[in-house]
Amino acid sequence: MSGQDKTRATVDIYGQPYKIVGTESTSHIRLVASIVDDKMREISKKNPYLDINKLAVLTAVNIVNEYVKLKEEYEMLEKKLHQKEE
Amino acid sequence: MSGQDKTRATVDIYGQPYKIVGTESTSHIRLVASIVDDKMREISKKNPYLDINKLAVLTAVNIVNEYVKLKEEYEMLEKKLHQKEE
Repeated sequence: MSGQDKTRATVDIYGQPYKIVGTESTSHIRLVASIVDDKMREISKKNPYLDINKLAVLTAVNIVNEYVKLKEEYEMLEKKLHQKEE
Repeated sequence: MSGQDKTRATVDIYGQPYKIVGTESTSHIRLVASIVDDKMREISKKNPYLDINKLAVLTAVNIVNEYVKLKEEYEMLEKKLHQKEE
């Protein structure tokens, strides 16, 4: 979204409501929340004795792991594109 | 890393120790943990009254948001590359 428009959305993550404020669309915020919710449930299934606090931190770890890998792939792709442009 | 090699590393995130098991290198795991730690401290600074549980969930939301955006950029770059290859 352009300018300083703020979107406010209340989303449910792992049974708890969260008020999210962002510059993205409501549908983007809902998509992001549903990915976090899915990931928490996936990790909780594999580790049923984790408390919610550790579960949330491990969810963040998991997602950063995927982010760092995607970032590396992105940089490789960028390099490939630059080589083609030379 | 190749095959089924598992790496075990204990990392500190927001003052708590976490045992992380993965197929990535120890340095990769430490990098990921430090990104989560930084992000939690950044969000906590802006929202000093959040409990650790909500802080961790909002950290995950923040990171997924960046992941989704990077994914979109990645797909755009891929499309661009395919067009050049045609």
